[in-house]
Amino acid sequence: MQFTAEQRLDDGVLEREFVLGEIPGVLWTPASASAATPVPLILLGIPPLGLRRMYPRLAARARHAAADGFAAATIELPGSGDRPRWPAVEQARADLRRAMEAGEPVGDEIIDPLVLPLVEKAVPEWQTVLDALLSLPEIGGPVGYSGGVISIGIRLAVVEPRIAAAALFAGSLVPAAIVEEARRVTIPLHVLLQWDDEGNDRQAALDLFDAFGSKEKTLNANMGGHTGVPQSAGDAAAGFFARHLR
Amino acid sequence: MQFTAEQRLDDGVLEREFVLGEIPGVLWTPASASAATPVPLILLGIPPLGLRRMYPRLAARARHAAADGFAAATIELPGSGDRPRWPAVEQARADLRRAMEAGEPVGDEIIDPLVLPLVEKAVPEWQTVLDALLSLPEIGGPVGYSGGVISIGIRLAVVEPRIAAAALFAGSLVPAAIVEEARRVTIPLHVLLQWDDEGNDRQAALDLFDAFGSKEKTLNANMGGHTGVPQSAGDAAAGFFARHLR
Repeated sequence: MQFTAEQRLDDGVLEREFVLGEIPGVLWTPASASAATPVPLILLGIPPLGLRRMYPRLAARARHAAADGFAAATIELPGSGDRPRWPAVEQARADLRRAMEAGEPVGDEIIDPLVLPLVEKAVPEWQTVLDALLSLPEIGGPVGYSGGVISIGIRLAVVEPRIAAAALFAGSLVPAAIVEEARRVTIPLHVLLQWDDEGNDRQAALDLFDAFGSKEKTLNANMGGHTGVPQSAGDAAAGFFARHLR
Repeated sequence: MQFTAEQRLDDGVLEREFVLGEIPGVLWTPASASAATPVPLILLGIPPLGLRRMYPRLAARARHAAADGFAAATIELPGSGDRPRWPAVEQARADLRRAMEAGEPVGDEIIDPLVLPLVEKAVPEWQTVLDALLSLPEIGGPVGYSGGVISIGIRLAVVEPRIAAAALFAGSLVPAAIVEEARRVTIPLHVLLQWDDEGNDRQAALDLFDAFGSKEKTLNANMGGHTGVPQSAGDAAAGFFARHLR
């Protein structure tokens, strides 16, 4: 893991850009983090819109996490932002857009080729990055996962025992195979649902919440569309991590 | 309003039993409450199990509210606890029990005679008590309503403009007429749902949440049965009132 840039933000948070192999990312650590007092870590998942575009929201979440005493890190998804283009996934995304614009049902034949390759590639990348992050003396554990593509969060929660708790954004574009995997998730979950999310089917999201195998899971549903998540919902997710990562 | 007993709890909270006409109740005020610094008020709804039986849970909620700087008050429902028996409602309750034990569907013919008379009588009682409470110099506003029989909370939210925000416990034993009233609720709502509530139909509860007319409403759903509400859900409701009553 090579740090390529760093700056100290006004609240004392150290923001470092890094590259690990071909994976670019950003790490935020609170001023209090040191080898003597290593801090828990929250992995910030992002949608496939590119790290640069998502930076303001990610940085705000990371600073909130740092104020609670947690480090936070994010990585660019394969095929997103400045990473090499991924024609197969771009094709699948174009198929999705076409179906949605035509008002056609979005079935497995569109969702699977869009989401499954991303899960297959992104989850091992997160695990490699997690190895590197946990080798830093100022990062301890436990580790939480927050947001981003929900299918990636589900697979990570199943295969990566170092993830202790996850806050996921309910989406309906989840392959049937991943819904099945959700039954094997056992860690505490905090699931955010936007009740009038224009891109997601509410009933599918509720069914997915029901499918999770975790004994401890909370659904936090709020009015509004995909980008209308209220401040209180962000605070609730932060409270969830404060309970589970301390 | 006559105070019939009072005690100062170990956290400085003043607990006073009162009677207003034929309505018994309890008022809790934080040590900080005075004519110079009147405090907001949370009305604590209770199920028809009797104030005495519910006291430990009510007192815990009241002390939590007091720690946040709020007064809290509850009243015995008509026909409950030490109040005169109400044969019609007892008959309706027996009908409900019989239907549930027989595994029969619980329809409007059972729900309406059980719930509607209670709403008709309890809501004006709450309003009378609210008049008296707000005339106390140490109680100011705004006023929140929390818990109890959800149909009473819905009617109060519709007819009582002094209620500024409500935290309701989702139940499915809601008359169709009250679901229609829910569409006219416009105040901020925080709705608690126990995902595996043995006494409630989950889909009916979700439909009721959907029906509320409020632009600002949050569904907080957690695993477990009717009495298994986790501590974090209580904290979330407290956070809701802290945002809306300060």
